[in-house]
Amino acid sequence: MDSKNQGPSLFSISNRRIKRLLEINRELAFLQSAANLFSWDQHTYMPKGAGDVRAELIGTAEGAIHKCITSKTVGKLLDGLESENFQNFTDYDKALIRLFRRIYNRNIKVPKKLAVEIAEATSKGQEIWDKARAESKFSLFKETLERIVNLKFQEAKCVGYETNPYALFLDDFEPGMTTDVLDSVFESVKRATIGILKRFGDFSKSISQDILKRPVEQVKLANFSLKILEAMGFDFKYGRQDESAHPFTTSFDPTDVRITTRYGEQFLTSSIFTSMHEGGHALYEQNADPRLGRTLIAWNKSLVIHESQSRLWENLVGRSKEFWSFWYPLLAKIFLESGFKPAEEKEFVLAINKIQPDLIRVNSDEVTYNLHIILRYELERDLFGGHLDVKDLPEAWNTKIKEYLGLDVPDDKHGVLQDVHWSSGGFGYFPTYTLGNLYAAQIWPKICEDIGEIAMPGGLARNLKTIKEWLKEKIHRFGATYETVNLLKMVTGEKMNPQYFTDYINKKFENIYK
Amino acid sequence: MDSKNQGPSLFSISNRRIKRLLEINRELAFLQSAANLFSWDQHTYMPKGAGDVRAELIGTAEGAIHKCITSKTVGKLLDGLESENFQNFTDYDKALIRLFRRIYNRNIKVPKKLAVEIAEATSKGQEIWDKARAESKFSLFKETLERIVNLKFQEAKCVGYETNPYALFLDDFEPGMTTDVLDSVFESVKRATIGILKRFGDFSKSISQDILKRPVEQVKLANFSLKILEAMGFDFKYGRQDESAHPFTTSFDPTDVRITTRYGEQFLTSSIFTSMHEGGHALYEQNADPRLGRTLIAWNKSLVIHESQSRLWENLVGRSKEFWSFWYPLLAKIFLESGFKPAEEKEFVLAINKIQPDLIRVNSDEVTYNLHIILRYELERDLFGGHLDVKDLPEAWNTKIKEYLGLDVPDDKHGVLQDVHWSSGGFGYFPTYTLGNLYAAQIWPKICEDIGEIAMPGGLARNLKTIKEWLKEKIHRFGATYETVNLLKMVTGEKMNPQYFTDYINKKFENIYK
Repeated sequence: MDSKNQGPSLFSISNRRIKRLLEINRELAFLQSAANLFSWDQHTYMPKGAGDVRAELIGTAEGAIHKCITSKTVGKLLDGLESENFQNFTDYDKALIRLFRRIYNRNIKVPKKLAVEIAEATSKGQEIWDKARAESKFSLFKETLERIVNLKFQEAKCVGYETNPYALFLDDFEPGMTTDVLDSVFESVKRATIGILKRFGDFSKSISQDILKRPVEQVKLANFSLKILEAMGFDFKYGRQDESAHPFTTSFDPTDVRITTRYGEQFLTSSIFTSMHEGGHALYEQNADPRLGRTLIAWNKSLVIHESQSRLWENLVGRSKEFWSFWYPLLAKIFLESGFKPAEEKEFVLAINKIQPDLIRVNSDEVTYNLHIILRYELERDLFGGHLDVKDLPEAWNTKIKEYLGLDVPDDKHGVLQDVHWSSGGFGYFPTYTLGNLYAAQIWPKICEDIGEIAMPGGLARNLKTIKEWLKEKIHRFGATYETVNLLKMVTGEKMNPQYFTDYINKKFENIYK
Repeated sequence: MDSKNQGPSLFSISNRRIKRLLEINRELAFLQSAANLFSWDQHTYMPKGAGDVRAELIGTAEGAIHKCITSKTVGKLLDGLESENFQNFTDYDKALIRLFRRIYNRNIKVPKKLAVEIAEATSKGQEIWDKARAESKFSLFKETLERIVNLKFQEAKCVGYETNPYALFLDDFEPGMTTDVLDSVFESVKRATIGILKRFGDFSKSISQDILKRPVEQVKLANFSLKILEAMGFDFKYGRQDESAHPFTTSFDPTDVRITTRYGEQFLTSSIFTSMHEGGHALYEQNADPRLGRTLIAWNKSLVIHESQSRLWENLVGRSKEFWSFWYPLLAKIFLESGFKPAEEKEFVLAINKIQPDLIRVNSDEVTYNLHIILRYELERDLFGGHLDVKDLPEAWNTKIKEYLGLDVPDDKHGVLQDVHWSSGGFGYFPTYTLGNLYAAQIWPKICEDIGEIAMPGGLARNLKTIKEWLKEKIHRFGATYETVNLLKMVTGEKMNPQYFTDYINKKFENIYK
């Protein structure tokens, strides 16, 4: 047994309301940890036949969390705290009050009956989506999706909104985010991406990915991922990696953060990039100040910041030429019987950076991926803005895929049915993926500025832990203490600026493809 | 996802009190499952650094269980139910009421302050015991143990007892068990065991166990255990086996039952017998009627019945000549490069059945093991009966070991400090081990009577699943529906009779050693 070193409390524990709120956090921590462990176990080691009972247990945990967070005690504490002098509060106190208030208000306004209806509809929805996708028939899913959209409309009415209820859902996943901001930001990303495709598309078509298809032993690949994770500063004393069908990160406390990866994908590098992606999420979790453990500040982190961390490690570090100048010779030992050949290193770096429009989002490259997100954003926005009906989704989807990616959608499975998100009611979630990319690209130049050695030959690979320390100091340790936009300003001195991303991809592909 | 087939409820759900009690059971099921999963994970996959947070989470779960089960609502429901006409209740209703009442009364009578004191003292106690054992100094543990014994005295006073508070602790682990019964039963076991040692001790000394010390690959051994478990009817759709430092069985529901084993012990067979032992526990859990899942009837099974199941599979089946006549040739493939030799099979069966007094309980053979239990029982009984002081435990221990096993105890580590039980306040637990042996030996002839084929050549190994089905029908499916003594009568037509055990070991060793 062991615990991370802790200093004095970050909270004003002499304030009895803060103290009480922290006690309630402990109750919530128990319930949330139980829910997370039930879920982690479900996806890793649970015996197949235990699914029904497990679903009920997770449901019970979620119900108990809802009940705890919307209790009258919490309401009174928040009212009281908000009437106090905020000058006396630490940043952590303020964050605690802000996060509690947010969740409290959001939940208290939705009648329990409606919440249960949504939970049931989306739980069933995922089953029906699964079936519809297997049969590649949107018609099987249409009615269910109409019901879910309708319930989400009702939910939005209870909470209250101005023009488009979609603004609420965006705000759920990224507080303060609006369609105005996204329309403008996504427009420039779209333009830049289409520009890149025009500039490099023809050359990219000629890139062979055969090198990524060589056979390799799973155990060796797994050990290789573990080595990269260790080099990134993932602390195995406080975490672990397992295998699951769909990779994810879960956290019980900064002292227990777990990621999963999967093997046997199309490319031998898939599991490595998955590990780096989830590892990026995990570092954000492991490096929160341990005194924030078991509070909402550790749990309710911004999805956009989270995604910026995973993308930074997966793409800006993991798909860079500089990273592989160190790691490729080691990888070659594993999958090349003939040993390391410098010429093949170049082939490899090109292969992992082939730009190629793909019908499937999760198979897409770093550049065209964002077009997938923007397409989904536009459809969601129009659906809730009253400009699009559920029944017209497949056609709208296929038209946009043709327009943005130049591809013909052969069936619903490779089109509108490919993602689970809508079946679970997760409208407003997709944009966080691209925002994460933009944030990562905006943060990265700051890192390079502060750690000059990264620019030296071999400097990136040698400085992975320094990068982690930088991220810890500037971002990770705060958890959700600061709102996303404020944190970005603290870290980069600027508000969100998509130019960083377009500069990054332009320079990168000029450099790699030249 | 999948669930076991279920029929109509076993409970009188039209009775509103029964219905409410079942609802409370669901709440408890959530808390108990969380506690069990936290604990299973702690012993299998949890990162090392997460120990402190985990201990707190388990403590929170246990506190919440206590609070739920001793609520005023439960008290009122029980009062109400007990005033109803019992003729209208099913056996399952009655069991539910009986088990709730038992735990409710036991907990309600102990003031919260004392319960917390005991929890803290025993939690610390295990740490201090661990240290004292490592240094082999009882003096380091003496004061702590005195405190724990003193607190257990106080606890007994709160609950109420007639002459010896130890009766209460016995009753905690095996309802209705008394020192009078144990004194008499254990006396005959002691006599029979000493008789066996006299008869076969000299021959046993000459048995070599070298064959069990041959090197073997852990993976192969693990797969072999899995094959045996499968043959026993352990259902991997509803369970799994992992590795842990101390083997155990845990259950969340009949659809999710997990065992652990360990490797790298002195003998290559250790992990196999561990798997069979835990597998025996697991079958009892997996084969409860699924409609009892998530009720106290599934959780509060008798420890004696539980132990009878583990011992039946480990010893009566697993250490029999007949079992190995089928499995030895398969095992020989794994650890004998030279292949299967019939002469070595005999050597092997003798080696796994060598009777040899050992200072350590858990290393002891099937016969002398019970002397270890009887010794501990006598010390516990005298400690709480006022005939023995904590400070005199080492001397009393060493004297009895000399008397019963003829061995000199060189130090406390190999004597009074070897078991964790007392440091956790688990007085009254040890007897369940030997009672389990006696029950197994009494049940076994019934099985052989009903499944005549067992007596045929190769019949035992061919009928493992039939044995499991027999146990399921007669014992497992009921969970804790019937009290131990009643169940034994239902199954064997008799009350507990130690003669079955003495007959069994006499016949077995005559047969093997001849």
